[in-house]
Amino acid sequence: MTAGDLSGPGPSEENGQPPVNTATASARTLADPGTPFAVLDVHKALRNIERLGTRAARLGVTLRPHVKTAKSLDVAALLHDGTPCPVTVSTLAEAEAFADGGYTDITYAVGIDPHKLPRVIALLRRGVRLRILLDSAEQATFVAETSRQAGLPIPAQIEIDCDGHRGGLKPDAPGLLEIGRILHSADCLDGVLTHAGESYVAYGTEEQGLAAKNERDTAVAAAERLRAAGLPVPTVSVGSTPTAHAAEDLTGVTELRAGNYVFFDLVMAGLGVCRVEDLALSVVVTVIGHRPEYGWIVTDGGWMAMSRDRGTAVQAQDQGYGLVTDLAGHLIPDLVMTAASQEHGTLTTRDGATPPELPIGTRLRILPNHACATAAQHQGYHVIDSAAHDTAPTPAIKAFWPRVTGW
Amino acid sequence: MTAGDLSGPGPSEENGQPPVNTATASARTLADPGTPFAVLDVHKALRNIERLGTRAARLGVTLRPHVKTAKSLDVAALLHDGTPCPVTVSTLAEAEAFADGGYTDITYAVGIDPHKLPRVIALLRRGVRLRILLDSAEQATFVAETSRQAGLPIPAQIEIDCDGHRGGLKPDAPGLLEIGRILHSADCLDGVLTHAGESYVAYGTEEQGLAAKNERDTAVAAAERLRAAGLPVPTVSVGSTPTAHAAEDLTGVTELRAGNYVFFDLVMAGLGVCRVEDLALSVVVTVIGHRPEYGWIVTDGGWMAMSRDRGTAVQAQDQGYGLVTDLAGHLIPDLVMTAASQEHGTLTTRDGATPPELPIGTRLRILPNHACATAAQHQGYHVIDSAAHDTAPTPAIKAFWPRVTGW
Repeated sequence: MTAGDLSGPGPSEENGQPPVNTATASARTLADPGTPFAVLDVHKALRNIERLGTRAARLGVTLRPHVKTAKSLDVAALLHDGTPCPVTVSTLAEAEAFADGGYTDITYAVGIDPHKLPRVIALLRRGVRLRILLDSAEQATFVAETSRQAGLPIPAQIEIDCDGHRGGLKPDAPGLLEIGRILHSADCLDGVLTHAGESYVAYGTEEQGLAAKNERDTAVAAAERLRAAGLPVPTVSVGSTPTAHAAEDLTGVTELRAGNYVFFDLVMAGLGVCRVEDLALSVVVTVIGHRPEYGWIVTDGGWMAMSRDRGTAVQAQDQGYGLVTDLAGHLIPDLVMTAASQEHGTLTTRDGATPPELPIGTRLRILPNHACATAAQHQGYHVIDSAAHDTAPTPAIKAFWPRVTGW
Repeated sequence: MTAGDLSGPGPSEENGQPPVNTATASARTLADPGTPFAVLDVHKALRNIERLGTRAARLGVTLRPHVKTAKSLDVAALLHDGTPCPVTVSTLAEAEAFADGGYTDITYAVGIDPHKLPRVIALLRRGVRLRILLDSAEQATFVAETSRQAGLPIPAQIEIDCDGHRGGLKPDAPGLLEIGRILHSADCLDGVLTHAGESYVAYGTEEQGLAAKNERDTAVAAAERLRAAGLPVPTVSVGSTPTAHAAEDLTGVTELRAGNYVFFDLVMAGLGVCRVEDLALSVVVTVIGHRPEYGWIVTDGGWMAMSRDRGTAVQAQDQGYGLVTDLAGHLIPDLVMTAASQEHGTLTTRDGATPPELPIGTRLRILPNHACATAAQHQGYHVIDSAAHDTAPTPAIKAFWPRVTGW
């Protein structure tokens, strides 16, 4: 093999300019930026967005996408036609960044820490309707007192537990009405919210349909109990990516939340919520070595690029750290990223057969287990559009879209 | 419970100033920054640094710390007295940041991707002795040709495989001498390097001592084979945190690499390389909920703050996502972070007993499985000094030290 066989550096890099992971003049295609880097296929993202948008419209509910997966104003702009839509966030840093971007209807869907209320108040004072979440009388008391002191009601939703996944109260919990009354006394009660977290282990349409029905029924039951006690419940919010795609009847629900669906990932494909070809996020890596005696191809993409997430390990088909495609996005049959160090990935065939010949310097794309976790390892996305480049072996980079970081 | 029972926000936050994860005037103690955030106890880091520094001096080898764990010029400054020491890096972004910080002797210890050579050449032209790594004739050919074209030899080390962990050639591999000759023809041959990656599953002093002896013997055997063929081998580099602490004889070795040891973590404690009380890195989280029916305490620190790393899952004592301490760093007996969502952590007792009463708003610290992975989830470190604050329940923050990010 000669140097000429390798995919060489671009012209500006030959001048000693360090390539950076942003779309510079020299970063014209996926062959250009230094690896590893994250790639977003905007064509697939738009298709995924349209799919759930159509469902939500048919179900008669507002869609409130969770922006915690992409954490990007540019990706969020794909969700709507110019007018910022309602969104869900997982951190106040996201809320602040989206407020800066013109979003005025934001739900912060993590149980509130009292220490964070000054930042909540600051956002409300900017004219952002920031809704917070809680599931205890202690939190409700703190929120009500802070609202009174600030002369500004903090819209708060009561977290309802529909499947024992994480936080929340059962709809028949003794404390539910007390929390509702404390919030209502300071004009804070905004509604109820639940998340079918256990739907991430619900396989196939039938199980997911049951999870969606349970999620809806639980939220509506909590809302009706509060209303029967004379308390207002304007918002009844449900959602997870699997249940959002399975729900058939959302009577009594006002809004649907989902986040992962914009990118999808191998966990969602394993659940049957999407196909592998719907995955919009991948990571470009380079082959840096071979260990033929073990059947290994070694790349420069380790867990720092993919995350340590191994969500498919509990599924029928364990996909290791990810499936492998060529730069154009075509799956390389049976090749799996089976091991990761910080900056090394190991690719092997599923059956232990000799892997395909992929010379040093070959660039590949890895499809992740968990898009939220993999995206979080990167500062942003190099954007491609597979609709425009169906036949290009090396897709062109259209843009670099940065992520919101920190808390 | 009244609002006054909760640890309230600091004065400037009451003015509506959003707290940020940097040590501002308002961030005086671990009670102040918004959670979650990473904390570095500089007293423990210095003790860990002194321990290995003393060992390396006694063994008569140069210590070349791997800065991939901390990725911080400020942390690296603890390693030496004002004069930048030799370092190992895992990315060219680290190499460039450390070059900017005055470091001139840097080993990039990931097999070279030919596409990255222009950045290597740029660093060499700045006067940095950047050593690269490779394990194939293809890479050696590319490096030699690039060196000739640039009129500048790129110092390259041959990666030797001592335990079947990842990359490298066995010392008796047919290709070793060919690679050495290709590199030497362009004046590039800088030596050999090996890493006992399997020492991360070597338990106790005896197993680690054997791994250290094997690591040394393998590297020296490869060096001697190259020398017998008339090739120069100035550098014989070995190291991993477990073997660096176990090696008793490094005759023939010129330098020792280790990185994790500055912070240590629960994996290293489980291997017996350090004690839990040596862990210098932790993550501050806040209690945001309780599920007494399940025995859960819910916090605002999920896998985004801790990483998905579950390195202790394969050890005798599985530590979940981490052990729990109070803000002063005292372990809360039997409390473990057993589950994680993106921004939620679940704490339970090891035996399923009722957990201690920790009100909403209580701040805790979580000790991580894997310091490299947890540190990578944060933009930097809030620095405390436990030597100066042995009796303080809420340690003072001395500084904020940023991390190098990206590739």
